Amino acid sequence: MDVLPYSVFFADGGLSLLKTYPLYPLYPLVSLVRVQASLPSLHDNTADIDRLKSVVAEALPKELRGCSVHIPFACMAKIAASFRTAGFRGCVLLQYEADRLVLVEFFAKAPELLPALALDLGSTHLEASLLDLLTGKTLARSTSLNRQVEYGTDILTRIHFAAQQEAGRNGLEVLQDAVILSIHELLDQLCREVEIRPQDVLATAISGNTTMVHLLLGLNPQHICREPYIPLINAPDPFLAREIGLKLHEQATVRVLPGKGSYFGGDLIAGILATGLDQAEKTSMLIDVGTNAEVVMGNSEWLIACAGAAGPALEGGVARMGMRASSGAVEHVAIDHERWQLSWRSIGDSPPAGLCGSGLIDLVAELYLARIVDLRGKFQATFPGQSAVHKRFVEERLLAMDGDGEQVFLVVAAGEAGNAEPVVLSQLDLDAMMRSKAAMYAILVTLTGQVGVEFSELARIAVAGAFGKHINPRQAITLGMLPDLPLSTFEPVGNSSLRGAEMLLLDHTAFERSQEIARKITYIELNVNQEFMIRFSGSRFIPHTDPGLFPSVPSFLGHK
Amino acid sequence: MDVLPYSVFFADGGLSLLKTYPLYPLYPLVSLVRVQASLPSLHDNTADIDRLKSVVAEALPKELRGCSVHIPFACMAKIAASFRTAGFRGCVLLQYEADRLVLVEFFAKAPELLPALALDLGSTHLEASLLDLLTGKTLARSTSLNRQVEYGTDILTRIHFAAQQEAGRNGLEVLQDAVILSIHELLDQLCREVEIRPQDVLATAISGNTTMVHLLLGLNPQHICREPYIPLINAPDPFLAREIGLKLHEQATVRVLPGKGSYFGGDLIAGILATGLDQAEKTSMLIDVGTNAEVVMGNSEWLIACAGAAGPALEGGVARMGMRASSGAVEHVAIDHERWQLSWRSIGDSPPAGLCGSGLIDLVAELYLARIVDLRGKFQATFPGQSAVHKRFVEERLLAMDGDGEQVFLVVAAGEAGNAEPVVLSQLDLDAMMRSKAAMYAILVTLTGQVGVEFSELARIAVAGAFGKHINPRQAITLGMLPDLPLSTFEPVGNSSLRGAEMLLLDHTAFERSQEIARKITYIELNVNQEFMIRFSGSRFIPHTDPGLFPSVPSFLGHK
Repeated sequence: MDVLPYSVFFADGGLSLLKTYPLYPLYPLVSLVRVQASLPSLHDNTADIDRLKSVVAEALPKELRGCSVHIPFACMAKIAASFRTAGFRGCVLLQYEADRLVLVEFFAKAPELLPALALDLGSTHLEASLLDLLTGKTLARSTSLNRQVEYGTDILTRIHFAAQQEAGRNGLEVLQDAVILSIHELLDQLCREVEIRPQDVLATAISGNTTMVHLLLGLNPQHICREPYIPLINAPDPFLAREIGLKLHEQATVRVLPGKGSYFGGDLIAGILATGLDQAEKTSMLIDVGTNAEVVMGNSEWLIACAGAAGPALEGGVARMGMRASSGAVEHVAIDHERWQLSWRSIGDSPPAGLCGSGLIDLVAELYLARIVDLRGKFQATFPGQSAVHKRFVEERLLAMDGDGEQVFLVVAAGEAGNAEPVVLSQLDLDAMMRSKAAMYAILVTLTGQVGVEFSELARIAVAGAFGKHINPRQAITLGMLPDLPLSTFEPVGNSSLRGAEMLLLDHTAFERSQEIARKITYIELNVNQEFMIRFSGSRFIPHTDPGLFPSVPSFLGHK
Repeated sequence: MDVLPYSVFFADGGLSLLKTYPLYPLYPLVSLVRVQASLPSLHDNTADIDRLKSVVAEALPKELRGCSVHIPFACMAKIAASFRTAGFRGCVLLQYEADRLVLVEFFAKAPELLPALALDLGSTHLEASLLDLLTGKTLARSTSLNRQVEYGTDILTRIHFAAQQEAGRNGLEVLQDAVILSIHELLDQLCREVEIRPQDVLATAISGNTTMVHLLLGLNPQHICREPYIPLINAPDPFLAREIGLKLHEQATVRVLPGKGSYFGGDLIAGILATGLDQAEKTSMLIDVGTNAEVVMGNSEWLIACAGAAGPALEGGVARMGMRASSGAVEHVAIDHERWQLSWRSIGDSPPAGLCGSGLIDLVAELYLARIVDLRGKFQATFPGQSAVHKRFVEERLLAMDGDGEQVFLVVAAGEAGNAEPVVLSQLDLDAMMRSKAAMYAILVTLTGQVGVEFSELARIAVAGAFGKHINPRQAITLGMLPDLPLSTFEPVGNSSLRGAEMLLLDHTAFERSQEIARKITYIELNVNQEFMIRFSGSRFIPHTDPGLFPSVPSFLGHK
């Protein structure tokens, strides 16, 4: 890692003992600058605050020169007094804001950490990290439930709730309070871990979908879900955390990742920021599967995106035994074609309670390769040339369940399962899964078709989130869900929404870059796209109505 | 007056009826911009606030293009709702702040006025004007007492009071409350006159000396009066009026004229701004006589200033019969050398109650020309060659007063005076006046001497305040107080401190210009200046120990 051209100084027990620390190669949103002013005299009667400002201006790193330094009125008296008491030397805390720097704190002794909070504001879960802006290191990371779930599990219910009155209160206020409480809970947990106080946190950056951002900011979300689907705001200016009731440092600001529209939120802009799609010379792609599948493609010249309802079956929302990729979810399934045995692995090696998206993909791909699921995505018990051991395997696993005699495939028997209920895959689950995989592939084909890019031209496909982390790209190719490309093309990138928020904190130029991304991206509405519907129909086979698109799949069969 | 390249639109009963108004040739601190956005649709899904911002950016006048538009979080929801309700067209209110514009209000129907408050914050009196920033016109103007006088008539007493506890409260808070109350009283009066509410006032600009600014802002003034005399701040950044408890528009900002040091405040920087000394090609001078005499000299290349205790005798602070230039003050005195009669004029033609500075100068000059005061500034009753009528005049007017037999000159007899007490001039008054006039001339000589400028090179001498308004420059030359220059050189400029504050409101670039003035001005400390002391001694004659400096004075004598 490079050493910065400017250094940040720490004091250990006094400013006389200074150590120079190399900083990660970015200028963060909040930074510390060491200052030492000449003492006031009859010949130098500069006022205290003006003296401080001028010495700060001189001490700025090259990259920040020319930024004006502003001191908020609320801090001025305290800063002036501390500066004088400290003998006109110490460290100041500077917040970067567009082309100016806001001086919010003076320290006689430099703090050891500059904590800042990055937050991925999901509709169900929040995920946050505490960063140290001195070093760029992650101090702690955690997740919590979004308490808004109490008032509606899906976005639409919450938008409707926001317009209602609840015990004499505005629904919007109730929802805002709920998410603020959730953030405070998560923050408290992180702060305990790092042994700091919430008021030590100097800045926060938040990414979330457009509705979540509206609810967090207490803004009316009603027009988001009504034609022509116009948010109140896509790109909020920075504001103070306390203005939304967030208790951090008194002068801590909030940066919200800008969105592009009602169905294209700041979480995805964060993903683009995190993966650097907007800066890459070669065309790349980002796939984020949540409630929707959101896909972006582009390079430093252009960006194009679309979103479609491909997600639910893959996120545990629809499949009967579906669950999020968390402890106890079966994430991996393998069928041994020699001995006809099925093995599985669950997250955290916990007793299995269901199937997460990657588990579902693994399972269906294995079942297809084992000819227990046919190319239409239907269970089939027997077929010509089936061996005896294979036949017995199918008979043992493919069962008629329940009173209505629904056919299911047994993945984990009740005896081994977490809550004494077997983990199974039903034909309905399979159908939902087939729709999701078809939608996903149709989205990818439609998007590339829009700009005439071939899949083979893609340098990289970043796959975000839990889906990206757990999925086996070969299985997804087997199902015809992801394009048949070299496996090294696919790259799991983790929670890129959170990583984008972190980047706003770590790099003072990232906020402007995120605005630029939002401005330049083109969003395609799939619901009104005729081509998409045709592609979708063609994708409802395994791997596809045109197997020529997936030349590698036969070799996967041979590999078993 | 020029018509601006951009126009401000008014609506009379609706935006369909638009009239274009010419604006005064400045872009004010707060301006109104008319906007009309295209309606949201499926093909244009820009969010409401982003739509407003982008249409505002397009509607900006050329001079403001490139400024980014920022919406404070506190206003955002309300502005978005009003914009939508109004059908995405109307007017926005923009505050200029450095290189960005802050959008603080949306109007469906344009307001008829953009009221803003300019305030000269004197230690004894406040003077304020309400301006309309649409037209640049003054709507109302008034003065009031500074309630801080209760806690100390002079600055030093107040600084000491600020450090004390008063009924369990901090003296600083008590003083801040007192001045805020005074401002509110003055504001209420102005608002009643114009028939607006204080919350309609959109901005304020304030000029005052350094201590007054500290007390207004609630900042510790203790170091102002202790060597090395360092203020806490000279140049405060803009802040919100409500942050100091000033109840104007919720988003109204305060601009405070920057000072140069403890004894060189924003009131004088305001004067430089108002008189344009900093922009003039030819070297000019500004004289402001208050508690101190403050003098600035310079041009567009350089500025130099000093201040000295020349004022008290001229401001009614020391002279026995002295009073401010207000109703009932004798402002003009003439002695007829033919008939040996004395005539006077009082301000407002009210019964006389005392002498204001200009009256004192007039009187002493006339007494000198009548040889009743000699060149040392002492009363003299008789001298060789005195006519009988002249002698009788002196006998009638030059009296022994009081028990101690002090000699005084009778200006207005008790019968004609306001409170049945005669208006007189004592030798003590005369001595104080001599010191003041000597100090004033010594200041002017020292200042010009510093940069090697001759008085004759001065294109203009602006004389500020009541002193400048009422003084007769010829009489001041007679006394050797002002240099012997053509009378047209002297120009009364009124309350230039208030005018400077007005300019901050009327011209968005004036605040930066005031900062530039404060940065570039050189301040000379007279208390440690040996040359000044020598000049001062030489000036304690009428007109001077070197009469050659005042060649015109003998002709004034002949003119009588």
